[in-house]
Amino acid sequence: MLAEFSIVPLGVGSSIGDQLAEVLKIVDSSGLPYKINPMGTVVEGEWDEVMKLVKKCHKAVMKNGERVLTDISIDDRKGMPSRIDQKVKSVERRIGKTLKK
Amino acid sequence: MLAEFSIVPLGVGSSIGDQLAEVLKIVDSSGLPYKINPMGTVVEGEWDEVMKLVKKCHKAVMKNGERVLTDISIDDRKGMPSRIDQKVKSVERRIGKTLKK
Amino acid sequence: MLAEFSIVPLGVGSSIGDQLAEVLKIVDSSGLPYKINPMGTVVEGEWDEVMKLVKKCHKAVMKNGERVLTDISIDDRKGMPSRIDQKVKSVERRIGKTLKK
Amino acid sequence: MLAEFSIVPLGVGSSIGDQLAEVLKIVDSSGLPYKINPMGTVVEGEWDEVMKLVKKCHKAVMKNGERVLTDISIDDRKGMPSRIDQKVKSVERRIGKTLKK
Repeated sequence: MLAEFSIVPLGVGSSIGDQLAEVLKIVDSSGLPYKINPMGTVVEGEWDEVMKLVKKCHKAVMKNGERVLTDISIDDRKGMPSRIDQKVKSVERRIGKTLKK
Repeated sequence: MLAEFSIVPLGVGSSIGDQLAEVLKIVDSSGLPYKINPMGTVVEGEWDEVMKLVKKCHKAVMKNGERVLTDISIDDRKGMPSRIDQKVKSVERRIGKTLKK
Repeated sequence: MLAEFSIVPLGVGSSIGDQLAEVLKIVDSSGLPYKINPMGTVVEGEWDEVMKLVKKCHKAVMKNGERVLTDISIDDRKGMPSRIDQKVKSVERRIGKTLKK
Repeated sequence: MLAEFSIVPLGVGSSIGDQLAEVLKIVDSSGLPYKINPMGTVVEGEWDEVMKLVKKCHKAVMKNGERVLTDISIDDRKGMPSRIDQKVKSVERRIGKTLKK
């Protein structure tokens, strides 16, 4: 399945780049396929491995904070592996044009 | 922590009430405190028990479908139990007025 | 259409109840049907009136802050008015049980 | 401000690529800076121009469907233009490593 998640600490000021850097280090070393975008991180894997990763990231930010908001959006489709690359390509094929990424 | 989640099956038509009923039966029998609203269900519990419940609901809908979209929003705050009732009351106290629920 | 929205100011500490109270005052005086829950507020109306309300709330919080995160989830269904009450009732009818709200 | 949005039609089957292609054509011709990812599209602009675009996309999908779910996540920060490129670069600088996009 595909999952996009974002983690926001409250009570640490309006800049949260340090916490996001910590999250992305964890994601990058997880071994799961991922893609970062300006609003979140998309990962691909089975339910348990994705949720284990999101929990690890959430707990890491929670450790040094008082309150953390985490959003997770899941798109789970039977018999469809490697969708982290294929979904955008499929739309580009339909349009006949390369889109900005 | 508090978590709101919603589960949407694709490919079963534009009415998804049967699937939502199945989800709510699982939630209602879980033993976790919950509140249903027109756009989702809010539950309160520790990370693992909340995620176990959401996974069970997601898998139940996935069982009879091809594709399922699940959104989860988490609000985790240290030292704050029983927030499923207190959050709304806290806002009402500040306004000095009972709000529609 | 139905829309649930939540507004989170960053940089004002981990308690954001004062800002939420301001938002709920605006919602309560808007005249649109609404329901508040522990994770957000559901409103019902046409696209333009719902978005006008969300913008007014977002800008009110932005006025006294540096950074604001606003999430909006829309469920738009043709020929279905008054869904803010009917959606939950429809699920309860299917289950044959009153659920917690 | 930055906004990520996703639009999901219900009642058209489990493949929604044709509808997404229509949405991306509208986004690509809007003139607003954007980035597509496997779970949504991030655009940058003022509130009114972003919401005008999202409404146009939502209405285009609604035109040929019965029910459409649209999610919008907004990150609005004072005095911060061109964040659609800068946010990811800022995290990469902190980590000292180029991340997957």
